[in-house]
Amino acid sequence: MTIDFKQDILSPVATDFAAMDKLINEGISSKVALVMSVSKHVVEAGGKRMRPIMCLLAARACGETDLTKAQKLAAIIEMLHTATLVHDDVVDESGLRRGRPTANATWNNQTAVLVGDFLISRAFDLLVDLDNMVLLKDFSTGTCEIAEGEVLQLQAQHQPDTDEETYLSIIHGKTSRLFELATEGAAILTGKPEFRKPLRDYAGHFGNAFQIIDDILDYTSDADTLGKNIGDDLMEGKPTLPLIAALQHTTGEDHAIIRRSITTGGTTELDRVIHIVKTSGALDYCHKRAIEETEAALEALEQLPESPYRQALFNLAQLALHRIQ
Amino acid sequence: MTIDFKQDILSPVATDFAAMDKLINEGISSKVALVMSVSKHVVEAGGKRMRPIMCLLAARACGETDLTKAQKLAAIIEMLHTATLVHDDVVDESGLRRGRPTANATWNNQTAVLVGDFLISRAFDLLVDLDNMVLLKDFSTGTCEIAEGEVLQLQAQHQPDTDEETYLSIIHGKTSRLFELATEGAAILTGKPEFRKPLRDYAGHFGNAFQIIDDILDYTSDADTLGKNIGDDLMEGKPTLPLIAALQHTTGEDHAIIRRSITTGGTTELDRVIHIVKTSGALDYCHKRAIEETEAALEALEQLPESPYRQALFNLAQLALHRIQ
Repeated sequence: MTIDFKQDILSPVATDFAAMDKLINEGISSKVALVMSVSKHVVEAGGKRMRPIMCLLAARACGETDLTKAQKLAAIIEMLHTATLVHDDVVDESGLRRGRPTANATWNNQTAVLVGDFLISRAFDLLVDLDNMVLLKDFSTGTCEIAEGEVLQLQAQHQPDTDEETYLSIIHGKTSRLFELATEGAAILTGKPEFRKPLRDYAGHFGNAFQIIDDILDYTSDADTLGKNIGDDLMEGKPTLPLIAALQHTTGEDHAIIRRSITTGGTTELDRVIHIVKTSGALDYCHKRAIEETEAALEALEQLPESPYRQALFNLAQLALHRIQ
Repeated sequence: MTIDFKQDILSPVATDFAAMDKLINEGISSKVALVMSVSKHVVEAGGKRMRPIMCLLAARACGETDLTKAQKLAAIIEMLHTATLVHDDVVDESGLRRGRPTANATWNNQTAVLVGDFLISRAFDLLVDLDNMVLLKDFSTGTCEIAEGEVLQLQAQHQPDTDEETYLSIIHGKTSRLFELATEGAAILTGKPEFRKPLRDYAGHFGNAFQIIDDILDYTSDADTLGKNIGDDLMEGKPTLPLIAALQHTTGEDHAIIRRSITTGGTTELDRVIHIVKTSGALDYCHKRAIEETEAALEALEQLPESPYRQALFNLAQLALHRIQ
């Protein structure tokens, strides 16, 4: 069965999505013209809005029918996500994101850093308006962990001894934690504490799968599929799962090449590294791990009552897996 | 009378200050080693901790005797301040701050941006623990305004038509707003809403005076006084009050030189610009404005009951003024 994003994931919350989109635009309004134009630029470059859609679906999957607050939470999630993208682009000195010039390239690093700070602050400001201390604590802890995950990733750069456990800590912080905030936040907001854990487990495992898949595609995709180039991670000496697994599956010269590539970064040995990743069993292992994480995500969902919204969350996790199948 | 920082400002809250300092170190603890070492580096480079001292003095000036919570608030204030310094150093590509290498210079821009994000998130996390919705709203709004002020400053760079009103908006955001959070926050936290406005007015006007004085010193100080170089603002084409006033006080060639210097930035005409600022009446005007703002700050303080703590806040505003006298 082919899953269609619009039809099988977005459509059950299409109306909420439109309302949420409007809230984002209101959220980024500012009396400072430059703040608004930069925020608008980066929010519009935002892609599919997968994270706020997860939040809206989770709220409805909890049985909530009045989505006024959940729409606000979804907008907050997307603003936090956008803030991290803006700062990531400064950090990576990226010129393009999804084929559009980044904020740092269009304006400059200064503007991008400060507008990112504005978006974080505004997201918290809107969160405070939701007037829910449990939600606030979840988000304030979560955003710390997200920042820590990003720094852990920097710390692991060029470190060939990085193990899978550390890799999982990194991707939990940089990817899965915001997924968790989106869905667990919906359970908190709708007053369904019994669904906090299942929704958090779903999002955590799905986030892990999503990032593992992304990291696989960095070694296997066609150049244009992702708006990212093959070998980007190797270039920066990032010890992602394909390389960690390759080290586990090789000895001798192949092993040495992978270690050296992580240590030095760069892509002079890219073709050789790709060959090793593909033929050593490393890639198969990554696929296995992506499937395991997806299955754990789907299993967690079973604890929610059946609904079109739960089904859409189910579809989302499966669609992600299709990218490597 | 000579005011001594330690004796006349710090000493009434010296015990609280030590407790606060410990809380900062606990606040920046992280399971990610790199987060901790960078945070420690930037927190230690922090200088006099004027903002948290204001917070502690304000809490005691409100009549509070149990400073457990206010010490936490003061630590939060300093962490927010440190976060903005770390990001400012990335923005300005600074290599030194107070004679110590900056985070971006010691590590790199990536680390500095992300550790700044961590400090903002951790500050909010500690704020949530204070469990006070009014305080949270004040801070979430305030941090948005701080970011907006910083962007407004970028927007005004190289703009010779920037007027004093816009300048005041900029310095309110980049400097005075955090001063206000420090003192008004103390009033909120200690349950003395009647002191919110006086303490906010004190901090707002004092912050304006403090920044005007800083901007004066950029044209008049000896090179080493501040840990900043004379002409730094001109270099970046920042239309600060000395230049805005100089434009008001000049015509013809002098006027044209100031306009051109703002537009182009750089310091090739620094000596000439300094001469115009000093002889046109611009500097006198800046002094007058700094004194007016200080007087407004002191007047607001009169609404608080007399105490050694109120006196210390009084002394602080007067000490700042001594830098240009």
